[in-house]
This record gives sequence, structure tokens and C-alpha cells, in this order.
Amino acid sequence: MQGRHFLNIPGPSPIPDRILRAIAMPIIDHRSAAFAELGRTVLEGCKTVFGTTQPVVIYPSSGTGAWEAAIVNTLSPGDTVLMAETGHFATLWKAIAARFGIEVAFIPGDWRRGADPDAIEAHLADDKAHRIKAVMVVHNETSTGATSRIAEIRRAIDAAGHPALFMVDTISSLASVDYRHDEWQVDVTVSGSQKGLMLPPGLSFNAVSQKALAAASSSRMARSYWDWQEMIKLNAGGFFPYTPATNLLYGLREALAMLQEEGLANVFARHRRLADACRAAVQAWGLEVLCEVPAEQSPVLTAVMMPEGHDADRFRRIALERFNISLGSGLGKVAGKVFRIGHLGECNELSLIGALAGVEMGLAAADVPHQRGGVDAAMALLRD
Amino acid sequence: MQGRHFLNIPGPSPIPDRILRAIAMPIIDHRSAAFAELGRTVLEGCKTVFGTTQPVVIYPSSGTGAWEAAIVNTLSPGDTVLMAETGHFATLWKAIAARFGIEVAFIPGDWRRGADPDAIEAHLADDKAHRIKAVMVVHNETSTGATSRIAEIRRAIDAAGHPALFMVDTISSLASVDYRHDEWQVDVTVSGSQKGLMLPPGLSFNAVSQKALAAASSSRMARSYWDWQEMIKLNAGGFFPYTPATNLLYGLREALAMLQEEGLANVFARHRRLADACRAAVQAWGLEVLCEVPAEQSPVLTAVMMPEGHDADRFRRIALERFNISLGSGLGKVAGKVFRIGHLGECNELSLIGALAGVEMGLAAADVPHQRGGVDAAMALLRD
Amino acid sequence: MQGRHFLNIPGPSPIPDRILRAIAMPIIDHRSAAFAELGRTVLEGCKTVFGTTQPVVIYPSSGTGAWEAAIVNTLSPGDTVLMAETGHFATLWKAIAARFGIEVAFIPGDWRRGADPDAIEAHLADDKAHRIKAVMVVHNETSTGATSRIAEIRRAIDAAGHPALFMVDTISSLASVDYRHDEWQVDVTVSGSQKGLMLPPGLSFNAVSQKALAAASSSRMARSYWDWQEMIKLNAGGFFPYTPATNLLYGLREALAMLQEEGLANVFARHRRLADACRAAVQAWGLEVLCEVPAEQSPVLTAVMMPEGHDADRFRRIALERFNISLGSGLGKVAGKVFRIGHLGECNELSLIGALAGVEMGLAAADVPHQRGGVDAAMALLRD
Amino acid sequence: MQGRHFLNIPGPSPIPDRILRAIAMPIIDHRSAAFAELGRTVLEGCKTVFGTTQPVVIYPSSGTGAWEAAIVNTLSPGDTVLMAETGHFATLWKAIAARFGIEVAFIPGDWRRGADPDAIEAHLADDKAHRIKAVMVVHNETSTGATSRIAEIRRAIDAAGHPALFMVDTISSLASVDYRHDEWQVDVTVSGSQKGLMLPPGLSFNAVSQKALAAASSSRMARSYWDWQEMIKLNAGGFFPYTPATNLLYGLREALAMLQEEGLANVFARHRRLADACRAAVQAWGLEVLCEVPAEQSPVLTAVMMPEGHDADRFRRIALERFNISLGSGLGKVAGKVFRIGHLGECNELSLIGALAGVEMGLAAADVPHQRGGVDAAMALLRD
Repeated sequence: MQGRHFLNIPGPSPIPDRILRAIAMPIIDHRSAAFAELGRTVLEGCKTVFGTTQPVVIYPSSGTGAWEAAIVNTLSPGDTVLMAETGHFATLWKAIAARFGIEVAFIPGDWRRGADPDAIEAHLADDKAHRIKAVMVVHNETSTGATSRIAEIRRAIDAAGHPALFMVDTISSLASVDYRHDEWQVDVTVSGSQKGLMLPPGLSFNAVSQKALAAASSSRMARSYWDWQEMIKLNAGGFFPYTPATNLLYGLREALAMLQEEGLANVFARHRRLADACRAAVQAWGLEVLCEVPAEQSPVLTAVMMPEGHDADRFRRIALERFNISLGSGLGKVAGKVFRIGHLGECNELSLIGALAGVEMGLAAADVPHQRGGVDAAMALLRD
Repeated sequence: MQGRHFLNIPGPSPIPDRILRAIAMPIIDHRSAAFAELGRTVLEGCKTVFGTTQPVVIYPSSGTGAWEAAIVNTLSPGDTVLMAETGHFATLWKAIAARFGIEVAFIPGDWRRGADPDAIEAHLADDKAHRIKAVMVVHNETSTGATSRIAEIRRAIDAAGHPALFMVDTISSLASVDYRHDEWQVDVTVSGSQKGLMLPPGLSFNAVSQKALAAASSSRMARSYWDWQEMIKLNAGGFFPYTPATNLLYGLREALAMLQEEGLANVFARHRRLADACRAAVQAWGLEVLCEVPAEQSPVLTAVMMPEGHDADRFRRIALERFNISLGSGLGKVAGKVFRIGHLGECNELSLIGALAGVEMGLAAADVPHQRGGVDAAMALLRD
Repeated sequence: MQGRHFLNIPGPSPIPDRILRAIAMPIIDHRSAAFAELGRTVLEGCKTVFGTTQPVVIYPSSGTGAWEAAIVNTLSPGDTVLMAETGHFATLWKAIAARFGIEVAFIPGDWRRGADPDAIEAHLADDKAHRIKAVMVVHNETSTGATSRIAEIRRAIDAAGHPALFMVDTISSLASVDYRHDEWQVDVTVSGSQKGLMLPPGLSFNAVSQKALAAASSSRMARSYWDWQEMIKLNAGGFFPYTPATNLLYGLREALAMLQEEGLANVFARHRRLADACRAAVQAWGLEVLCEVPAEQSPVLTAVMMPEGHDADRFRRIALERFNISLGSGLGKVAGKVFRIGHLGECNELSLIGALAGVEMGLAAADVPHQRGGVDAAMALLRD
Repeated sequence: MQGRHFLNIPGPSPIPDRILRAIAMPIIDHRSAAFAELGRTVLEGCKTVFGTTQPVVIYPSSGTGAWEAAIVNTLSPGDTVLMAETGHFATLWKAIAARFGIEVAFIPGDWRRGADPDAIEAHLADDKAHRIKAVMVVHNETSTGATSRIAEIRRAIDAAGHPALFMVDTISSLASVDYRHDEWQVDVTVSGSQKGLMLPPGLSFNAVSQKALAAASSSRMARSYWDWQEMIKLNAGGFFPYTPATNLLYGLREALAMLQEEGLANVFARHRRLADACRAAVQAWGLEVLCEVPAEQSPVLTAVMMPEGHDADRFRRIALERFNISLGSGLGKVAGKVFRIGHLGECNELSLIGALAGVEMGLAAADVPHQRGGVDAAMALLRD
């Protein structure tokens, strides 16, 4: 496998050279004035990306940790929450909640669309006793390539007049898909570093509303590492209560600078354009996009359904061996049945076309029934 | 502040160029065969450093997370543990245990020595009912520069015939001070990446005995991120249950290679020699080492007591401004009263002398009463 | 211009990450044993790439310097040499010879083919007095994308029974196109670092035969920096007569390792395959390849003729602005009339397709008459 | 040899991390607008460091090449120049001149001082016929640690009323020692990248006066690579006539930024202070500094004479093996008799002390007669 690898999994996304160089800077004393400046820069800079003026907590952990953090800071054992089965990651988040003694009302789903605002409204309207403490939704389901309409879900909660907290996982959407923590009155936004932020994995985030902070003060869940209080207190000075992942924070500073240079609105538009091109290719191949609702198809990734009788993982292995491209596997219920094309982060027109060529030639190499012309269709769209 | 910064805090320690380059490699698919090879290499390679053939769990987190992991995997709310107040970090670990509903019998200490094996034996002998579920000790107290004699504490536990788990924090000793998880029958060894392993912060470790695993299966503590079971299961194939901090694992692979090239025994001897030289300097300055027990003085750092009436932080600030050196501050009870010199990781004779010169000239610049000749004394020792 | 830049000029070629990291290693004493090991490794390793067991001299300079070196080491003012006008770079080399008082018999050419072995043979056969001291040919004309058939030119020289030295410029062919310094009895092979060797510019090479060394001893040209003698003498121990470009030599060591890992034969085959795909695209676009002789079309780059009335540089600018791709400009006689696509070094299938998409979409964006389907045609070829 | 290497040769000097990261940036098209901006920045930025508003030519070559460039651009075969034997490098420069048919009047020297302005004036005054075309002096003799007083030599030339060109080698002084190309009316200032500029070797410089340019137009020396004319013409647009060493130019941009941040006056003062500290150490050891004239002792390096009967290279080898420090060897006439301590570039107080400790402990390890206290003496000086 010669030459540059095409990493087209839906995250970790390729790390830009600028960020790789940033994380390779010598480490500094995390109790120094120089560090405080770094700390304040990233803590403040993050807010824009989340669309918030409220605190953003940064953990040295995977996104999985930030999922747990959202739960253990706000809920108590025995609490009930409402979640929607949008795919594998929603299911994993549910499992974590269950481990902490949370009852999850799980609105079933077929993994081919985002969470249904109407169903959520109906559940909440039924919950006269306000036993549901939180509505927890995945913004961009990385396993299916379906986004949930967060603004509409907010309206659904409001329509039901329900006081539940609203917690949203943006691990694979942040800095790729338009997102507005404050405007949508989200209480906890969970995120991670290795997708739209173009960083290595190892940082995760909780953006936190005043309502969430109030919930934290009455939560009976034991917690320490994930506890917001001490974090927010020390963050005020640019510091952290325990040793931060300084080198990754260097990378975060660089990533925030890159996003600012391009402009968030442009970043979002670029992701949409590339995603549309990818879907044009899939359509031309005669294959089916897993997400059935066009308006909910993800700007970040496209999950493609394999023709009946063809194994997605065999195809992915052949594409890797022949064309040096990594594609995402099907996860959970759709294992072996879909492959996923990531088009996020530093992706641009030509790197997307290269990736789509890898898929198109890989389909041929793996004898997967398809029509040619996917790359052409993508180019037709990007040309304009 | 021109030229190379001298980072002589007791961790994060300076990151060698080799490791900085390693973490700047492009990221790969964490579900690929290439990753599995990386995963197996580091998971296996770690074991040597811990002195174990049993599983070592690697978390994407700070060392603080690995402290929590040791607790939530093995204990249950209401359990009692025995700890020794060796300093600030032992106190922090105790506070975490308390947050999870653990009763801590805390053997008081004056922060000037390691944990007392006799006191531990006495406590355990008194505990006829075996209410104490674990003995938890910090191997190298980073706040004081005192090491605890783990082998002797093991013997104390055995002498008391007590079945308690033995959990040891080696965050600042691993790969710097001789340590033997298996031989000393430690059940959980906690560690971190940013000290003797010379990595950035962001990885932490639990080395886990069979007895600890058995305890985990009966623990009633809610846990997910820190749970050993799924980790160990997926580690068998070189994988992780959630996105690993791949770039830091690249660094770990390089660090393990460096340690192997030098030889662990040589690494330990080098730390002892440099530490002795540092202590010779402190003595020559007429200052006092915080750790009163020579045999327990740390190979990793030296905490130095300021003369009465002189503020350690003012001195540290002046040394930084004038000589571009970062020294560790006093923490907790000894804040302002001590400063700490780190001599770990990639430290060698000449970089230590440079650091000691920074201290000696900084003492003069800050008008701290002292005698000259510390650097000379250190050189006399290193010359031989 | 977001995302990864596509650098598809015919050199400097994109520098692989491995090499970028290698050149970023701390510098060492160039008179140390550690350096000697580096020196010996690269001096010896180079030979394989040149297909020689004879000395290869490495200069800290551009390839232009190595052109000059070949001249000033072997010739004397007033000497006559035979060159072939294959394009811009042959013309530049001729101009350098002229500056040093060399008479150049310049076989005219139309820039659409390599040097003609028959014409060379005829010239040499006519030169009964053996006034021609050297035949100087460019292996791969970077300005036109035409390769010259070096083995056949060797046979032409031999057929003419002429004693002239044979000097070949492989600046843009080395490590991309099959080349055999010894087998083809080349006397001086000139090369550079920034093409097939995938290094930054700054190193250049002369591979030198015994016959060339003999010529050097009778040359009356003043020289110092470029002088072979002292170089070869010190190279024996792994050293250089003046300060070498150590960091670029680190890169060279890494590049040689990469070439060895892939295997030179595979490297050459990969370049041919990618070049064929590029030509298939050009043909599908209905555009003309500058090099008219299929067997001489370069594995390294393809120069494409613009339709009459369309400015190549305007097209290149639009492609850069819209699709973040750099293409090579027309040089000298063909300025504005051709653009050049580089497909060398770490280029692979998918990065080539990305680049061809940039050309195809750029042609549309610049309103250059063409047919679509170039990328498709390239994929059809690469699929098999 | 563990830990950070102390590279205390008088160049290449240690490359700061910032510069290593800069040279590891991906390469760009050297004919692009982005490159032109880089080119203009470094070509303009260089001028401040040379103290000139006139052109500075940048070569992709070692400093040795820039020596040759100064000669072949301004002189003609048979010309006479006046040089001073300040040491090994002056002797090498003389040898290069001789290779190009230049007659060198070489004022003999004992390698223990800079060039003598009075002797130069006397020679020029004697040259009524103005046969001497140039006075060529080494500013900082890297082999001896003696600087020549360039301003005074300028005055000597003027006092003699002699029209000779004035050419100065600042390879090891530029950006470390105060230097003023315009004010001192130097015609050609030669320099290199790997000393005060803290870059890898591979770039060299000629700062060129109008008088030198005029001389170039009447020079009868054959030249191409080193020719100023085409260089200066293309430099106007930020470009170069042949492929530039782009990655090293990235480094140069960063180095110029670092020098500007510190301020050149501060850079010079820092070098003087560190040099004084080094000399204080040598004196305390009871050893002799090679340069006998205190005012001419170099801010860049100190050459130390070994006691009779002791081999400098054996001492250096032992210091390297025991303490991981590289010291400079004696060159030419003083081979084996002196060792050289570099204290230039990113050197600061503590890294100097580390290096001096390596010397002091190395002298003991090698059984070289000396008194202790050198490091102490250096500290006493730096403390104030």
C-alpha cells in the first residue's frame, strides 16, 4: 500500500499537518501563566463552535467519557430519561445510562432516520408526572449517517411544556454541522475531538447550561473525574483540576484557529456540498443510502447499503488492499450490511473524489453489483 | 526568556524529540489490522514496565481517572479502605474514594516520609472482621518526594494475614523507580503517561491482578468508562471498546522502545544517581529536603524546604523569569513552603546540572539565604 | 482553499509524512561517529537507486548545481559537447555549458519527443576527429514529459565507436523511471532530491564512472565546491569535505528505506501505471499530450496542450483557486500553451484520481473546451 | 547515552523546536503566489540581520559555496587579493581563491587573534598600483574563537585610500555578533544558515554592495550557479532562478521571526554574556583560551588549549561517552591541541552551565590536569 492513505472513516478524521505539528510542541508546566493563556484561549474559543456563551468543560478522555459525564452530573439512580434509537451510538449511550441505574424509555427506530420530534413530543405529553428527567438525542448518528433535527426536538419539548433536561450528543457533528447550544436551549452538549475538530481522539466536551448546573447540584450520582463543579471553578483562571492533556490542547487551539480562518458558516456549507456529492455518487452506483430521509442525511458521513448477499467488510478489505483507503464498517444491527464513507474535517473536493474513486473501483474489484459513473456524478455536482 | 526551557517540575516531564515525532504521525483507523498491531504492541510492552504478566488496562484519561478506575472496579459503597497520608496526592485519592462512598481509615502523616509498613500492619491486625477491603498506597508522593516501601507493605499485609486488596499509585514512579506488580502481589497498580514514560498527559493505566478481577465481579459500584471487563476482552485482539487516543499510543510504543533500549535497570540506576546528585546540591546549599528518611527520598523529584519567611512561589517566579526554568510548587499543606525539582524521564547529568544551576542562581536572584556550592557538590557526585 | 492541497507539479513532489518527520530530527555533529554512520548509509544506499557500484557524490545544492558539477569536473573551456534539444531543461543545461566556454552542438528538437539515438549516432560518426568530448542528454524532460531512450543512445555511441563521455540528467526520473548507470555505461548521472526521492529540494547528485574520474583529472576547469576528488576521498569514511545538509540526509535515509520497502521494480511499475491512467484521461478529454511518441511519454508527468486560444496559466490559476490543486506551468517555448500534471513520488491511484478530477473540473470552470470522462477513463484503466 | 544531547560544537548549533517544526511543513509550488510571499519575506527579513538595505542573495548550498560565490562573482583569474591567516577557515577560503587562479597575499598569523588592521593598512599602502582587488577577512574564525575588528579594518582600507573590495565571512558570526554590512561598507558579506540563524546547514548567503555588483559585471570568471545577476532579478518578485530549498526557507522565516522577537541587540548581548561566562570557567580551570586578545575573543565559541601532552580528541571522546556532550575538535594546525565550546544560537544560561559541567566533569574523567570551579565561576558571572 503505497502513497498517501485515504482515511475515509467517519472519524477519527484525517489530522491536518498544522494540527500534527501543533501537538508536537514541547510540553509546558500546566500550572504556569503560559498554560493559563492556552487554557483560557481554548476554553473561550470552544464556545463559538458550540454556539454558546455558557461553560464548556473539556475532559482528557474519549467522547464516551463525555457521554458518561452528562449522565453522572445531572441524573440520579432510578431517574427516567427519554432516548431515541437512531442507531448504534444511541444504543451505546442508552447502555451507559442503564449502567448508572437510569430507566431509559427508548423510542424504537429502524436506523434509517433521525429522532422523530413528534414521537418525542407525544412521549413527553404523556408524561404528566414529569418523571422523565432528560431527553437525550444523538445529533449525528455516526453509525447510520442520519442527523436528528435538534431545533425541532427543542420545539417538541416546549410544545409538550415539559421541564426535562435536553442533552445532545454532537460527537460527530460538532464543527461540521450547524449547531446552536444556546439558541436551541440544549442543557448538555456532548462532544469529542476527533471528528469535525480534526484532532486526535483524547479530548471530550460537555457544554453546560445553567439548568444543567442546577440539576448537577441535586444529582445523587457519585462522581469525581467527570464532576463539572471543580472544573468550571478552575477553568475560570485557565486551569484544570487535574493534569490536562496539554499537547492535545495545543492541537485544539490550532483547530479553533483554522475553523475561524475558514469561517464556521463556510465549514458547514463545505460539508453539505461534499455530502451532496457523495450521495450523488451513491445514487449513480445504483446503491442505497441507509438514511431514508433526504433532509436528515448527514453532512459528515454516508452509510451505503450493500446489495443483498454481499458482505460490506469483504468489500472494505479489498478496497483497502487494492486502493489504500479505509472506509467505515457497519456497526451493531447493520454490521456487514453497510459501509460508511466519511467526508468530514479537512475533506475537500479532490480528496472526496479520490475517496469516491476508491469506492467505485473497490466495488468493481470486489465484484459488487453497481453501475459506474458515481465519481462522474459527484464531479458534476461539485463542478457548479 | 530565550533558548531552551528547563522543565524541571516533577511531571509532566520533558517529552523527548523521538516521542514528539511519534505522536505527530497521521492517525489510522482504530478498527484496522494496522491498529491491532499497535494495540498489541503497547498492551504487551507495558507489562514489562509494570513487572507483570497480568492485564494492563490503558485509559484515554489523566492519571486521576485511573485512581477512580481502581476504586469503582473493586469496591462498593460503604466499604472501608486503609490509606496513609503521605502527602497531597494521597489526600486527593482519599477524597475521590470518599466521593464514591468509601470509608477511609487514613493513617495520619507529616508529609515527610513514605507510608509506614508497621502502622499498616497494626491497622490490619486490629481489623479482625476484615472490614478493610483494600490497602491503598502512593508509591512516590509527587508532592513531597517521599517513596513508600511497597515490598515491605506487602509483607506487612501478609504478616497481618489480611485478605485486603493492595492498590498502589505509581503515577510518578513508573518507569523511573523499580516496581514489581507481580512479585509484590499488588492487585491494582495505577499509573499515568506524563512522568517516567515521558509522554504527554492523556493516558493512564491500571495493572490488574486476578484477585482484583474477582473483586470487580462482586463490586456494586456503577461504572462504564472505567470498567475493566470490556477493556480486557477487546484488548485481547489489540482493540479497545471505545475510541483510543491513537496518537498517544504511538508515543507509548516509542517510549517503550526507548526504555527497552536503555534497559529498565539502567533507567532506575540513572534516576537514583541523578537524585543523589540533586540531594547533594540541596545539602550544600544548606537547605532541607522535605523527605526526612534518606532511604525514602525519591529518585524522581526532590522537594526542598524554603528557609523560614521566604515564599517558595516568589522564588520559583524569579527563577523562571531570570533563568527560564520551571520548578514545581508546593501543594496543599506545604504550599509556599517548598519547591520541587523534577529529575525524571529523559533527565541526564548535564540537564540536571543546568537545572540545579537555575536553582542556585535563582536562590541568589531571589535573595534566599543559602550557601553556594550546590552545583559543585552535584558534579562531585556525578563525576565518579 | 480548504483541506489538503493537491501538489501535482512535476516536482518538488509531495513529501511523505515519514520524510517530513525525518528531516525534523535534531541535528548532530557532522564530524561524529553517529554522522559517519548516517553518511555511509546514504552514500551506499544511493547506489542502488542509480544502478551503480561506483561513487555517487551528494551535494548540498539544487539539481542545477549538479548540472554544473558534471561540466566543471569533466570538461575544459573550448571543449565541444553534443546535446539534444528535448525541451526547456536541456536548453538550460546547454546554457550552463556555454557559460563555462563549452561549444555545444545542439541537435534541434520540437519539444515533443526524447533525444533521437540515430541523430546522435550520425553526429558522432561524423566526428572523425573526436572533438566531441561528451554526449549530454536529459533522461526525463520535465518541461515536456518526454523521456529519452538512454540504453539506445548508449548503443548509438558505441555503434559510432566514439570515445565521448556520456552524461545523463535524471533529475526528474531517478527513483521513478528504470535507470541503470552501470549497465548503460553512463559516465556522469546528474540528479536531484525533490522528485522521485520525495525529499525537499536541497540535495543533488553526481554518479561518476571511472572514465569520468579520469576525465576530471585532466580537466582544466577551475572548481572547488563541485570538485569530486575531495568529496570521494572523505565519503570513504562517511564524511564530507564541507558541512553537509544533515537534516536533508536524514530525509534521504528515510526515502531510501521507503524505496527499498516498496521495491524499485514496483516503484517503476506504479509510476508507469499511473502515467498510463493520466494519459487515458487526457485522451478522453479530447486534449493532446505534448509528447508525440507513446513509448517516450513520461512515467513522471504529462504535459497537456491547451486548445488553441486558451491560456494554460489562466486555467491553472482557476484550478488552484477553485480546487486547491497546483499544476505545472508551460516553460520556455511552450509557456502558456501547456500545463503539466505531475504523477510521481508518493502518488498513488486515489491521489491521482483526485488530481485528474481537479483538472477535469478546472477545465469546466475555466471554460476550456473538452469532453468529460477523463477521470472515468483513468479509473477504467486503474481498475484492472 | 541517555537524555538530551548537548550539542556544543560551534555550529551547526542546536535547532530550536520551532524551526524543526517549520521545516517539516509540506512543500509548495516554488512558482506560486504563496511561495512568492515566502520568498519576499525571507529576502527582505534577511537584510536586517546583515545590517543592509542592499540585496542579499540566498543559495541552496553550504557556506563553502557562498565563499566561492563571492570570489567567482567579483574577481578574475590572475587577480590579487589580500587575506589574513586568522585560522583554519581563512586558510580554506584562501585555498578556494587559489583554485580559481587568484593570487593571495596572505598575512601570516599565529591563530590566536583576529586580523590586524594595521598590517592590512600597511599592505594596502604599499600597493600603489592597486593590484589588490579585494581584502577578504573572516569575521569570526570558527577554528580559533577569535573575531576580527571589521569596522577597524574598514577604516584601515579607507586610511590607505585603497579601492579594493571588502569581503567578509560572517558564517559563524551572523545573528550572534554585531555586524553592519552597510555601515562598514562591506562589499560582499558571506554567511551560512547553521550557526546564529539556528537553521540546518543548506542555505548560504551573499550580501552584495553596488560596488560588488559593478565588479561582477567586469569579472571574467565563468559562473552560473553562483551568479548574482539572475538571482537578484528573480528575487525582486520573491522567486529564484532555480529550485530553492523551500523547507529551509520555511525555517529561515521562523528564525527571522525569533530574532525579531528577542531583538538583535539582545541577541548580541546574550551571546557576549554567555561567552564571558564560558571564559570565566576556562580561567578557573587554569586552562588557556586560544585567542590571546580579550577584545577579540568570540561571542560564539571558545577554543581551549589542552595542557601539554594531553590529546584534545581523547578528552572530547570521553566527554561524549560519559556525558553525552559534543564539543568541537581542533582543526588544521591546532588539531588535537584545542577543543572548542560552542555557545551560540539558542544557547542560554542553563544550557551553557550544563555544557560547562560536561567539560569540567569530562576533564576529570579524562584525567586532564585542571582545577575545579569553572562552573562556579561561570555561575558567579551569570548571577549578576
